[in-house]
Amino acid sequence: MTVPQLPRSMRASVMTGVGAVVVEERRMPVPGPGDVLVQVDAVGVCGSDTHFFTEGHIGELVVEGPLVLGHECAGTIVAVGAGITEGRLGERVAVEPQRNCGTCWYCKSGRYNLCPHMEFYGCPPFDGAFAQYALIRADFAHPIPESMSAIHAALLEPLSVGIWAARKAAVTAGSRVLISGAGPVGLLTAQVAVTFGATEVVVTDVSPHRLGIAEEVGATRTIDVTRENLDGIEVDSFIDCSGNATAIVAGIKACRPAGRVVLVGMGADEITIPLGVIQNREIELTGVFRYADTWPTAIALVGAGRIQLDPLVTGVFPLDEVGPALLAAGTDAHSIKTIVEPFR
Amino acid sequence: MTVPQLPRSMRASVMTGVGAVVVEERRMPVPGPGDVLVQVDAVGVCGSDTHFFTEGHIGELVVEGPLVLGHECAGTIVAVGAGITEGRLGERVAVEPQRNCGTCWYCKSGRYNLCPHMEFYGCPPFDGAFAQYALIRADFAHPIPESMSAIHAALLEPLSVGIWAARKAAVTAGSRVLISGAGPVGLLTAQVAVTFGATEVVVTDVSPHRLGIAEEVGATRTIDVTRENLDGIEVDSFIDCSGNATAIVAGIKACRPAGRVVLVGMGADEITIPLGVIQNREIELTGVFRYADTWPTAIALVGAGRIQLDPLVTGVFPLDEVGPALLAAGTDAHSIKTIVEPFR
Amino acid sequence: MTVPQLPRSMRASVMTGVGAVVVEERRMPVPGPGDVLVQVDAVGVCGSDTHFFTEGHIGELVVEGPLVLGHECAGTIVAVGAGITEGRLGERVAVEPQRNCGTCWYCKSGRYNLCPHMEFYGCPPFDGAFAQYALIRADFAHPIPESMSAIHAALLEPLSVGIWAARKAAVTAGSRVLISGAGPVGLLTAQVAVTFGATEVVVTDVSPHRLGIAEEVGATRTIDVTRENLDGIEVDSFIDCSGNATAIVAGIKACRPAGRVVLVGMGADEITIPLGVIQNREIELTGVFRYADTWPTAIALVGAGRIQLDPLVTGVFPLDEVGPALLAAGTDAHSIKTIVEPFR
Amino acid sequence: MTVPQLPRSMRASVMTGVGAVVVEERRMPVPGPGDVLVQVDAVGVCGSDTHFFTEGHIGELVVEGPLVLGHECAGTIVAVGAGITEGRLGERVAVEPQRNCGTCWYCKSGRYNLCPHMEFYGCPPFDGAFAQYALIRADFAHPIPESMSAIHAALLEPLSVGIWAARKAAVTAGSRVLISGAGPVGLLTAQVAVTFGATEVVVTDVSPHRLGIAEEVGATRTIDVTRENLDGIEVDSFIDCSGNATAIVAGIKACRPAGRVVLVGMGADEITIPLGVIQNREIELTGVFRYADTWPTAIALVGAGRIQLDPLVTGVFPLDEVGPALLAAGTDAHSIKTIVEPFR
Repeated sequence: MTVPQLPRSMRASVMTGVGAVVVEERRMPVPGPGDVLVQVDAVGVCGSDTHFFTEGHIGELVVEGPLVLGHECAGTIVAVGAGITEGRLGERVAVEPQRNCGTCWYCKSGRYNLCPHMEFYGCPPFDGAFAQYALIRADFAHPIPESMSAIHAALLEPLSVGIWAARKAAVTAGSRVLISGAGPVGLLTAQVAVTFGATEVVVTDVSPHRLGIAEEVGATRTIDVTRENLDGIEVDSFIDCSGNATAIVAGIKACRPAGRVVLVGMGADEITIPLGVIQNREIELTGVFRYADTWPTAIALVGAGRIQLDPLVTGVFPLDEVGPALLAAGTDAHSIKTIVEPFR
Repeated sequence: MTVPQLPRSMRASVMTGVGAVVVEERRMPVPGPGDVLVQVDAVGVCGSDTHFFTEGHIGELVVEGPLVLGHECAGTIVAVGAGITEGRLGERVAVEPQRNCGTCWYCKSGRYNLCPHMEFYGCPPFDGAFAQYALIRADFAHPIPESMSAIHAALLEPLSVGIWAARKAAVTAGSRVLISGAGPVGLLTAQVAVTFGATEVVVTDVSPHRLGIAEEVGATRTIDVTRENLDGIEVDSFIDCSGNATAIVAGIKACRPAGRVVLVGMGADEITIPLGVIQNREIELTGVFRYADTWPTAIALVGAGRIQLDPLVTGVFPLDEVGPALLAAGTDAHSIKTIVEPFR
Repeated sequence: MTVPQLPRSMRASVMTGVGAVVVEERRMPVPGPGDVLVQVDAVGVCGSDTHFFTEGHIGELVVEGPLVLGHECAGTIVAVGAGITEGRLGERVAVEPQRNCGTCWYCKSGRYNLCPHMEFYGCPPFDGAFAQYALIRADFAHPIPESMSAIHAALLEPLSVGIWAARKAAVTAGSRVLISGAGPVGLLTAQVAVTFGATEVVVTDVSPHRLGIAEEVGATRTIDVTRENLDGIEVDSFIDCSGNATAIVAGIKACRPAGRVVLVGMGADEITIPLGVIQNREIELTGVFRYADTWPTAIALVGAGRIQLDPLVTGVFPLDEVGPALLAAGTDAHSIKTIVEPFR
Repeated sequence: MTVPQLPRSMRASVMTGVGAVVVEERRMPVPGPGDVLVQVDAVGVCGSDTHFFTEGHIGELVVEGPLVLGHECAGTIVAVGAGITEGRLGERVAVEPQRNCGTCWYCKSGRYNLCPHMEFYGCPPFDGAFAQYALIRADFAHPIPESMSAIHAALLEPLSVGIWAARKAAVTAGSRVLISGAGPVGLLTAQVAVTFGATEVVVTDVSPHRLGIAEEVGATRTIDVTRENLDGIEVDSFIDCSGNATAIVAGIKACRPAGRVVLVGMGADEITIPLGVIQNREIELTGVFRYADTWPTAIALVGAGRIQLDPLVTGVFPLDEVGPALLAAGTDAHSIKTIVEPFR
């Protein structure tokens, strides 16, 4: 195959302050040893991108200088660093947007997402993927089948969140699962639950529109919590994708004894939980922080046609319109997942 | 609802010696405390039934007196013992054909299938279900949905074997699974693997006919081992449903490091395994003995339409023809699963 | 052996109202099928007994009629019910003070402590062991070695709480464990942690006296939280035996990423936890509700001399003095564990 | 602190052919990025070193050129590569003698011992530690406490084998464990089992001398299999440290249902196992290949005084006598573990 010669510079959408992004011309990145350079074909907009953009921080993580946001990314390998075979040039890949140290205890015990030295795309001070090119370690550029579009490949990132959550929730064949929040992660987690074998998947939200999509992609029951409560619901696992304190408490109470609660949605720093319920039912509660070893699973599931991604994609924007893309969720009630195509 | 008055006697097919069954009129069983009486609507024929019938024993388990075989059973509750609500009368149920002691260490630690005091249907000296009525503890008479036929409900028993095997094989989303043997259990296990999320399910057999059914029910690849070997196959889990020593060794070698091997098929008492492969790859190998806590999962999966049972049913016989039913697998190369309907 | 003929009645200490106990003469219990009658040689006083006694309820569990408290119990089998061998007469046993249904999903999946039909000693409306004799199912009367005293055998109950907590906390060789609260359960859990292989066991309390005992029995470090905070402490597992909200939050924050939190102490019905810490570190949090399958372990550990029980025993009372025994913890700052000997 | 200036060359004991070792003067190794240079203070002789030395290969691993054997190693950091703080100079360390790739699936999922790109000390073609200096990645040079001698630190390597085996055997508080083979690994594994909480540790061997040491270090029972069989022994876990086929079969049969078998000892490439026992008891069987994440545990256990290492050390040799050191086990029936001190 022929790889087109690379330009000397690239366009990148840079967040320069709260609520401000500009497209800049930046020097072309050069892959170091073990890295590959990926031409970015599609990047999804995550709620955390929007939060950094509108608030300037997430908790104690503060955007202090110019930052390229974006971490739901897929593209094509156009250059390789030392030690990486040129056979990978031209390979279409989904990017797992993290770089762990590989030598700490967390890395060596299979929990690399908890590596204290992690460098994560679009998380200050590390640049992300709202740009034409991005660097990633070769093993985190996961090859995708030809049949998979770049947009679908970008969505493997939020899908990975759902896979990681479903693993922690111990979802398995015959599971009854409650998912609160029918945003992109909730809608993907619902589908993941089905692929893990769940036969009852209850999704709650306040938006009938989103609940309609939930049903379309496989929820066996939806509940509009503005009209109905969870009385009578009993599940094996509860996965919160809303970050809403009321939803979390209701979900915990809907778990059977020995059930599992996984908190995905980010909300307040503190939350009041029903301790007596946790103890008397020996419920296991945990949270997720990104993911580890999920891309192979995500690729296998999407490759096997078990996940519907198209119903989630509600807008595609060029690099010049990252600002509107970041704000779409707030301005359009029907927006689910917005995509940026840097070469559009 | 009205429950028809029960007769004083029932017909039962009794194995009276090697290769001999006769239908006898027997006294109607009466449910003791905690038991229910089930009118048997359908019973599947298992290879172990056939083995008892043709050989008179399985290993050290010897048929020493008259014995009613049959343990893949579904029916309708027609009487209840002390302590069981009459509300269960008329309930259609799948029978989990075992009675554990409930108080030994195995029972109390969730491994009741290993209870040393187990009484199992059709396993000498305990009578089974080739009869019009049978007793079972109320909690092992699992209610089934209206939409489920009695034949399907009977097949939850071999399906349970597949579920138990898939759990032990740690099959999960994205798993690559090898299954050797496309008999009833292999065909069900292949489908179970898909419901657990497996995206590659390779099934091997020596019969192109059976491999055709495997493809029909969801195997992603089939291999006729009379023509092709397993070179190039690498899987996360290998489940042997053949009992064949050559297949077992080939399957072990097809496992990736840290893979799992589950031996379901019964074959020789001893087997030679590649110790170096087990050690160098840290493969985990185990076997299954019946099942524990699988009916709820089986009912949920079949209820959700995720398992195809009809392609397996190749013959339905009345009680008078239990003999031919037991021999069908040996006389008809296309026979997969034979059903007995005691009221046919 | 000769079993002394049993009297027709026995003495029992009955709670007749809040703060009131009287010794009554009661009809001798007769063991039903599967049960044994145990002559009670020693019973420990638990904080929950004291709570029922002084408050009349624990959460929604209300003492509504006369109730025999006491569930930390050991004794001698003096009669057996149907189905139990007379060979057990005279056997010295530790009593696991619960009676599960044996047929529900929790019972059959190894979580019998979560059985919704559980009958537990001294938990209304079920009588407990502050009496000369008590009934228990034969399999919950665990034989003890000759060398084990009745008082030690009674203390296998709180020891079981510690074992159950250590299992849930995944304590293993080399673990660093934080235990808040140096009451009886905290002191036992600290020792259990060492037997599971923990090499750092930090115990916190507000009482220097109790912390002194913690050091005596094996804590590698103690912290008086009235003088010192947990800065700089990092552990793999945190087991709260205090029920104190401040201690729980501090303990959660002391856990490393992927650490485990087990909440044993009973406190408020609700608690505010640092959600961000739970999520960012993927901490697993759970509670305990009694125990399952712990007596064999407890007997093995005490039998092997790995647990020091004597430092905990601070008072032994006759049946007539159950009232003072129940109040000892509140009136004597140095009281740890009080024992009642019904035949003293 | 002051680090002595390093010489330009070092002495290394090189295996030049089957049964032949010579001491050579070699160029001083220079640490690359992320590595440290360790002055070797003590190295243990492993049975695999002896096997390479006397046979020229282990299975398909063939010694084809000059090779420095030795992988049980401890020493002092005397130089650091790029990216490693000079603060580590002078640090006393135990060496985990492996170098994994850090990026393959096994490395990232916590199974780095199964990394297909592993470079292991003294395993052809990678040189080991029978030399005055050796290189290792900084994170595999584990700091040891001052109180720990270099010889003890070297023995953390075989101790790691025992820890890894005990984890796979799921040894926990109250476990009954059978260990066949009272060589260095068996004697260490027996002690490890106790630290994991085992209360019955049965050790078998053919040497009364070794069995005597087993008792000295904590075995609760020893069996000389030349005089006695395993009748009546039932255990939760069986760990084979003998590689002997007869011992392995006997051990499997001694396991209770749902027990675990871990095969550590290397023997024949194939082994005949009792399939019926594996299936009917649902025994889980696996093997070990080196270890992952064991040094921190080993250091904690030895640091806490829970492992006796001195009874194993039966000889200390200088670098010039690596040959006799390698042959000691074969020539001296009382030899257990031989140590080489390169600066002796």
